[in-house]
Amino acid sequence: MMFPTSASVIIALLMGITGGAFVIYELRRVLSYDPGNETMQAIAKAIQEGSAAFLSREYRVIAIFVVIVAAVIATFLHWQTALCFVVGAIASAGAGYLGMYVAVRANVRTAAAAGRNLHEGLRVAFGSGSIMGMAVVSFSLIGMTVLFLVFNGSPNQLIYITGFGFGASSIALFARVGGGIYTKAADVGADLVGKVEQGIPEDDPRNPAVIADNVGDNVGDVAGMGADLFESYSGSIIAAATLGAVLGEKSGAFIGLPFLVAAVGIVASLFGIYMVTGKELPEGANGSFTAKILRFIGQYLIKIDENASLDDLLKALRCSVWGASAIILALSLVAVLLSGVSFNYWLVILVGLIAGNAIAYVTEYYTSYTEKPTQAIAHATQTGAATTIIQGLAVGMMSTVFPVLIVATAILLSIWLGHKADGSLASGLYAVALSGVGMLSTLGVTLATDAYGPVADNAGGIAEMSHLPADVRHRTDALDSLGNTTAATGKGFAIGSAVLTALALLAAYVTAAKIDDLNILGATMLPGILIGAMMPYLFSALTMMAVGKAAHEIVVEVRRQFREIPGLMEGTGQPDYAACVGISTESALREMILPGALAVVVPLVVGHVLGKEALAGMLVGTMSSGFLLAVMMANAGGAWDNAKKWIETGQYGGKGSDSHKAAVVGDTVGDPFKDTSGPSLNILIKLMTIVSLVFASSFGSGWFNF
Amino acid sequence: MMFPTSASVIIALLMGITGGAFVIYELRRVLSYDPGNETMQAIAKAIQEGSAAFLSREYRVIAIFVVIVAAVIATFLHWQTALCFVVGAIASAGAGYLGMYVAVRANVRTAAAAGRNLHEGLRVAFGSGSIMGMAVVSFSLIGMTVLFLVFNGSPNQLIYITGFGFGASSIALFARVGGGIYTKAADVGADLVGKVEQGIPEDDPRNPAVIADNVGDNVGDVAGMGADLFESYSGSIIAAATLGAVLGEKSGAFIGLPFLVAAVGIVASLFGIYMVTGKELPEGANGSFTAKILRFIGQYLIKIDENASLDDLLKALRCSVWGASAIILALSLVAVLLSGVSFNYWLVILVGLIAGNAIAYVTEYYTSYTEKPTQAIAHATQTGAATTIIQGLAVGMMSTVFPVLIVATAILLSIWLGHKADGSLASGLYAVALSGVGMLSTLGVTLATDAYGPVADNAGGIAEMSHLPADVRHRTDALDSLGNTTAATGKGFAIGSAVLTALALLAAYVTAAKIDDLNILGATMLPGILIGAMMPYLFSALTMMAVGKAAHEIVVEVRRQFREIPGLMEGTGQPDYAACVGISTESALREMILPGALAVVVPLVVGHVLGKEALAGMLVGTMSSGFLLAVMMANAGGAWDNAKKWIETGQYGGKGSDSHKAAVVGDTVGDPFKDTSGPSLNILIKLMTIVSLVFASSFGSGWFNF
Repeated sequence: MMFPTSASVIIALLMGITGGAFVIYELRRVLSYDPGNETMQAIAKAIQEGSAAFLSREYRVIAIFVVIVAAVIATFLHWQTALCFVVGAIASAGAGYLGMYVAVRANVRTAAAAGRNLHEGLRVAFGSGSIMGMAVVSFSLIGMTVLFLVFNGSPNQLIYITGFGFGASSIALFARVGGGIYTKAADVGADLVGKVEQGIPEDDPRNPAVIADNVGDNVGDVAGMGADLFESYSGSIIAAATLGAVLGEKSGAFIGLPFLVAAVGIVASLFGIYMVTGKELPEGANGSFTAKILRFIGQYLIKIDENASLDDLLKALRCSVWGASAIILALSLVAVLLSGVSFNYWLVILVGLIAGNAIAYVTEYYTSYTEKPTQAIAHATQTGAATTIIQGLAVGMMSTVFPVLIVATAILLSIWLGHKADGSLASGLYAVALSGVGMLSTLGVTLATDAYGPVADNAGGIAEMSHLPADVRHRTDALDSLGNTTAATGKGFAIGSAVLTALALLAAYVTAAKIDDLNILGATMLPGILIGAMMPYLFSALTMMAVGKAAHEIVVEVRRQFREIPGLMEGTGQPDYAACVGISTESALREMILPGALAVVVPLVVGHVLGKEALAGMLVGTMSSGFLLAVMMANAGGAWDNAKKWIETGQYGGKGSDSHKAAVVGDTVGDPFKDTSGPSLNILIKLMTIVSLVFASSFGSGWFNF
Repeated sequence: MMFPTSASVIIALLMGITGGAFVIYELRRVLSYDPGNETMQAIAKAIQEGSAAFLSREYRVIAIFVVIVAAVIATFLHWQTALCFVVGAIASAGAGYLGMYVAVRANVRTAAAAGRNLHEGLRVAFGSGSIMGMAVVSFSLIGMTVLFLVFNGSPNQLIYITGFGFGASSIALFARVGGGIYTKAADVGADLVGKVEQGIPEDDPRNPAVIADNVGDNVGDVAGMGADLFESYSGSIIAAATLGAVLGEKSGAFIGLPFLVAAVGIVASLFGIYMVTGKELPEGANGSFTAKILRFIGQYLIKIDENASLDDLLKALRCSVWGASAIILALSLVAVLLSGVSFNYWLVILVGLIAGNAIAYVTEYYTSYTEKPTQAIAHATQTGAATTIIQGLAVGMMSTVFPVLIVATAILLSIWLGHKADGSLASGLYAVALSGVGMLSTLGVTLATDAYGPVADNAGGIAEMSHLPADVRHRTDALDSLGNTTAATGKGFAIGSAVLTALALLAAYVTAAKIDDLNILGATMLPGILIGAMMPYLFSALTMMAVGKAAHEIVVEVRRQFREIPGLMEGTGQPDYAACVGISTESALREMILPGALAVVVPLVVGHVLGKEALAGMLVGTMSSGFLLAVMMANAGGAWDNAKKWIETGQYGGKGSDSHKAAVVGDTVGDPFKDTSGPSLNILIKLMTIVSLVFASSFGSGWFNF
């Protein structure tokens, strides 16, 4: 062994701390921006209070869940796992809280900065996104490495650290499901009464649900997405380390490698982030060699001026991700060589990185209105809402083909490379996990490009509500469009990484549960697979119905306010924003319980009743069926959204035409698809697997003995 | 061995011939009814000619396919398999042709009979359905038993007979996909111009697409459904026999048992059919003992008078299926005892029968407007088309839970019972196949209740077009409503039996391909599963887009005729029905090629490139994902349809209200869901598996050696 495991872990810890330092630095930088005029600040304050209220109530519910589950784990498994579980939950919740704390403060600052120029606006919004991104990776890495060092990192104690992933998953579940229900209930509710019944525009301050709608963007797209990827990031590293531990004499190197790759990813992400916000370097760093390089590259690659098109902006963000990827490839080659494992594992990391970017590209193709699929939906609006829906669903289904082929190829190549390197299926499965770590290694910057979107969206809303000049709104619109594109690609990335992570965790589960016979035609396997394939459908049905129910409650309240508050429509009466925020919060928290409980309870029931083999089958069923359904829903939703936007640019009669009305139906159907049910499936896939992994030792052969 | 295999097979052959005799008798009886007045006959003639034209052109396309595939099979496998393939294709096509031949003649006779009384109308329509049902089971059984006897029935020659299943599958594929595209293109196209643009009612003779629409009901719902279940029926018997052949010393009994159960099913189905049409017994049979029993039961169970409600009619049809099931249980107990196999196998048949009925019941619950789920969709129409779609999709997804649990339980219990009886996984898988045979044993009468629907639907259209008195139309409407319910439950039954059949065929494939290691985490397995899970999405996307394209062509033609034919709207000009029929035919045949080719080619490519293990994984992926998607689509479509019908009874403002408009959007989206894409997935699941089984011996370990 050339390089001890603990050294890899300590490097990862140090890089995690570096990321944490960046978070603090960037937080101060973003908050130092001008928060705008009084009207703007008042609106921002309402959003801040609404978000904080939701998050604190959500965390209170989660805290009860965490305490109960921790007690169960401590009682039936080990106190160490319970401890890791609590730490994982706290780390994820902390990153989510921080990301949202800054997002609801960066929004108003972005609006104010956009009053000066476009690049300034981008830098504030992206800075906020980068805080979320780096908080996720560094909190995760710090948490795992510290626990690893506490437990001596011995292979048989690695199982404790799976608790960390379970804790992160639990937060992700409620953040994604609760946040997803909240955001779409408020959005649909606000639109149905405001736009349709009262005929007032989007983001109009007279609409009592407008603040809830803005809060929703943050709790759903910032906190929800962050927790989702926190889970994938932690899960892929844990799975790789767990699988590496059983790979014989080189196991120490195999355990250390994912940590090294993650550490390398933080360096690269920091670089990528500076490619966007690079004009302004840390104080005192101006003369350093690194600063010179950053400035040099920044000058050539990223040009954002007033006339920047969507393509220019997109190129800027892409360059940051690609730049980070290049650095990861270079540095992880060093890491692989240093670890003394086969060169094949570097290829595996390359496969993961390429797969992640390829999925993002395909997602963009299927959801961008400059491309055929979305235009075909716009074309179908001419014959009404029904053909719009049919075409949108068909596009969503068609869009699953390439993501599946990409992930299938990545899995096949990873297993093959790992198998060639160390001659066993186990080393192949380790390679799949490592490929997932590679895909997620750019997360610091990828998530920044993603979490930036809601900030820009909010900034536009604040600009509208505080009646800022048209050119400000024009700039925030540009930033918002960019955010919609990155949100779509981010969703592709999230589901792709979820599948790889889940597969790696599944392999870890099979190892931990000591399953010998995994015959796909085994006695209980097929019932398991079928039940597993059904879970995403049940879960999606519940979350879609939840959005419908919650939106209905908002509609009733908004109608009541328009009826009962004198002068509301004329702008003299003051709407009761807090009432709508309260209803969204209540209903989101109430409706997230059942799907959330199912995700945890069903694997335990199946594992005990049908046995551990059936559980493995169920996880495979959920993974494959959930992957397809999630991609279909996310892409259909994105394509409907953009088909509507394309029509709004003047196609097929433009805004107000019959085509536009049909497109609005598509967009509204797409809302819970792409922002609630679809993304929640990522969590379902991972959470069910990690629950199984944590409780692996407790499952037997089930009630049906054969 | 108490009972030789060949005796079982000969009994099955004799029962097949008995069924065939019934088909001829019943055909003469139905055709002896009064075909109505001249107007009615002229309309019926147009439908007959359109149907015959489509079927003959479709069969010509299929003939080319059959010749090519037979040549491939003869070249790369055996001429015997190729022969069986051709026989299977001819038998299925023959049953489909006959079923449609009588359906397009029974429709006008049903309309005329409904002019006299309700029971007479039911007897003609149901008689037509029973011809389809009995033709399917008897042609299948005759074909297989004769081939079995020709090849001496030795176990190692059983593989040839899989070709029969493949032939049946090929017909089913094109009949379901082509027929499904045809029927919905004509339906949607006729409605979009006729109802929406010109404001003329459904089934108005001025609409140039009205004949195409009526033809569509027959080619889609009669010929398509018949071929689908012909395939399931044949496939389940072939799979059971193939799996039985490897079960050691009792293998002869195991091979014979499915044939005996099928034979018993024919007796029972004949009995069930007479429970509906029982007032009129065969000539000369009036004094016989059987006739007395039939008359006795018929008097007590089936009461259909003028004031019969939908429930009464439904009860009549249900009694016929339950009566048949009871007989099967009694006689198959004799068959099991006679065969000398364990009593457990009788329980397995019971499990299959119960599962089939349970799925039908659940389907009815989720799609009937007297129940909550469909009413919730109607409720959602109040807030517009978007919420209607969201609620409908949620109901569709939710409706997958119980069918999955039912099938999973049936599989688990069957494997368990088989395993307990003969102590091996192989005997467990044989039990699954036998359970499928049990589920399908009532097919003669189940399919009759199903194929009856389009006849009643057509009868209503003919009554409308020939301006028959209101009370006639009232009676045909009652018969049509009944048909809609049986169509929905029939779809549940079709997909449930498809899954069991596919699973049994998969087990046969694994045996035939000599696969030892089926580890679900095996190197190529997961890529296979993911690709398999993607196939139903790709297939559905293609078929939904095909409906859209074909409907668009119809719209263009209908608009042209209204524009160019003078006096068309006033009823003085003659529409060119044949042009619309021609376009539907052309486009359906053109659009069915790509999805059809994919279903055959993809398994061959995966089997050769990724190897036989990956292919097994792919089949599992397709089966699970396809099952879910098919149930979701079929039930969402059925529920939307009935939500619209419920509103038309006066709920939420009734016909013409905003709620009704939203419900129409749901119904139109549901059309390709429930009649094209959803049912086509049944075929995809089975066809991909049987292609793999037939070519099993040609697959190796693929290009990636591990």
